[in-house]
Amino acid sequence: MLENIDFEILHKDSSTNGRITRFKTGHGILETPVFMPVGTCATVKSCTVEQLYDIDITILLSNTYHLYLQPGDEIIKEAGGLHTFMNWNRMILTDSGGFQIFSLSDMNKIHTNGVEFKSFRDGSKHFFTPEKVISIQNNLNSDIIMPLDVCTEYGTKPDVMKSSTNTTLRWAKQCKEAMKENSHQILFGIIQGGFTRQGREECMEQLQEIGFPGFSIGSLSVGEPRDIYEDITAHIAPKISNGPVYLMGVGDPYKILKGISHGVDMFDCVLPTRIARNRTLFTHDGKITLTNKKYERDFTPVEKNCTCYTCRNYSKAYLRHLYKANEMLASTLGSIHNIHFLKTMVDGAKNAIKDGTYRKYMNSFIDQYEEGDKLRKSNLR
Amino acid sequence: MLENIDFEILHKDSSTNGRITRFKTGHGILETPVFMPVGTCATVKSCTVEQLYDIDITILLSNTYHLYLQPGDEIIKEAGGLHTFMNWNRMILTDSGGFQIFSLSDMNKIHTNGVEFKSFRDGSKHFFTPEKVISIQNNLNSDIIMPLDVCTEYGTKPDVMKSSTNTTLRWAKQCKEAMKENSHQILFGIIQGGFTRQGREECMEQLQEIGFPGFSIGSLSVGEPRDIYEDITAHIAPKISNGPVYLMGVGDPYKILKGISHGVDMFDCVLPTRIARNRTLFTHDGKITLTNKKYERDFTPVEKNCTCYTCRNYSKAYLRHLYKANEMLASTLGSIHNIHFLKTMVDGAKNAIKDGTYRKYMNSFIDQYEEGDKLRKSNLR
Repeated sequence: MLENIDFEILHKDSSTNGRITRFKTGHGILETPVFMPVGTCATVKSCTVEQLYDIDITILLSNTYHLYLQPGDEIIKEAGGLHTFMNWNRMILTDSGGFQIFSLSDMNKIHTNGVEFKSFRDGSKHFFTPEKVISIQNNLNSDIIMPLDVCTEYGTKPDVMKSSTNTTLRWAKQCKEAMKENSHQILFGIIQGGFTRQGREECMEQLQEIGFPGFSIGSLSVGEPRDIYEDITAHIAPKISNGPVYLMGVGDPYKILKGISHGVDMFDCVLPTRIARNRTLFTHDGKITLTNKKYERDFTPVEKNCTCYTCRNYSKAYLRHLYKANEMLASTLGSIHNIHFLKTMVDGAKNAIKDGTYRKYMNSFIDQYEEGDKLRKSNLR
Repeated sequence: MLENIDFEILHKDSSTNGRITRFKTGHGILETPVFMPVGTCATVKSCTVEQLYDIDITILLSNTYHLYLQPGDEIIKEAGGLHTFMNWNRMILTDSGGFQIFSLSDMNKIHTNGVEFKSFRDGSKHFFTPEKVISIQNNLNSDIIMPLDVCTEYGTKPDVMKSSTNTTLRWAKQCKEAMKENSHQILFGIIQGGFTRQGREECMEQLQEIGFPGFSIGSLSVGEPRDIYEDITAHIAPKISNGPVYLMGVGDPYKILKGISHGVDMFDCVLPTRIARNRTLFTHDGKITLTNKKYERDFTPVEKNCTCYTCRNYSKAYLRHLYKANEMLASTLGSIHNIHFLKTMVDGAKNAIKDGTYRKYMNSFIDQYEEGDKLRKSNLR
């Protein structure tokens, strides 16, 4: 496996633990902080790859669990790998399927050597071992891959948590051993360990011992209180200086910005595309719901200074109409705007880190955003 | 209204009544024969305007009935017209709503001065007069517009047909009178008259007397036998030499090609986008159903010489996967291919007319297409 990824920390913010890093992958250099849109089934829902290139997206996430079930990783291998299959020539990260097994499947049962689960598609039974998960991701030929892990919920009992973390660690080691020596794929370690500083720290230290070029933080932002989320991120991320830190499944503007302040480098989430399909768009003043009657004759763009394709060409009134008429184009235009919003927000973060003004940038962004969201929730937006 | 549209017949095919014409509109010169994709609700379903520009689509059709109900023509007027509202800077034709009133609405009742109907959206009651339909289309500010007409089904009794045609003619006159003198919009007359040569011919003659810059043929391809469809088209279209002839709602490759051979200039249909959403794509060898198991590992494009975006970048295996996974991108990529297919077919017709070889082109295209479709229906495709 690719162990030497030439990881470099280019800038450190003077006001927070925020940082700019870069490292090499099989499809170019990844610069962080970065938000990765999710293309669950080898497509970012309702978007073409050109629409994503246009936003200057450099890396996508795709889901091992979904691709294994449909169309099957062997087919993607025959197609020449996921990049060729889906016509995406930039970087791809795939997850291990762990999260989906524990959240989507009707049944899942952890065994010593892997996890048994039922497909969410047709109820068929499957078994993932650490080696199987690596083999699937080898077939996908994504650039950054994840080891099989055990995902835990907030509220899991300490003894279950302990044994889950041990399983995650054992599987991480097995995954590393399963990697081919000449592979160009980068395997991250996934930090589990529950919702305590100590549990997380122990897991991280053991992963460091096994040795990985990068580290993911898993099972956070899964329903625990915001202060616990924040405390763990703030405690763990700054301890990792020898590789990129990826906070899995986080896409809320607040959490991304806080994560960056603690030294998190990579984020992914279905949020921007999912809420876009559900008629909700990001603005600097919080989220807005496009089907609101007040936009019926609003011929201005979603955000007047936004440079995305949607805002350059379409009005709120048009988007509202598309949503009301259940037109697919609404999802496309909404997703473009929402992905562009997060991309631009993270670019702004990067610039602020360079200037050493990240704390100010973050606080001002969050204040404006949350103030707007509060107003919306009180039905004024 | 715009009466002098500088209509010219540029070429006449020597082997059929096929012809190349052109005329001017408020958004440029329209060259025919032409296929117009349908953007029912101010969007060609699942496609951006750039994707349509890329196929070199010059004119879209949009539906008065739908736009009147949602978002409402007054809103589109306030937006600056349909072109601005939907961000389309080429030509737009709108229909009169007649077809939708008679096919979509739960209730419709013809009165002397118009037609009463219930909205297919919410059951609310509405009343269209000839003047109202012109006023709506004035608000939309489309380039080519249609008068209110009475649509009839195959099998309508002669006396009902007679009175329907008379109503259509009276309304056509009223619509013409309702046009503003300085308008840049072009109003066509709609030829009704049922499923006999005589009925159609009489209607056409009376429309010619009223005087229109172009003529539509309505209520054809509505379930009547193919030979009746063909006989009427063959009889009526060649009689019109003083303006473009538009055969409403026709999008099947066979019928378009036959129509062109009789001198029809313009076609529209939801077919290419509708079947694309339903996993069916056009090929020169007939339609194929992408979810077919045989495409699971077919890494070739839908058609190997096709120059559309979809065929240049994606395999049948990828499209099949998207359809199986219910991904919206399937509809987008499928629609692009199908619209491109018809556009290219009509471009080929134009070239053949120039060369005086249209009959050969048409027969060879239809033979290959129908042979393939026959094979498919016998489950071999």
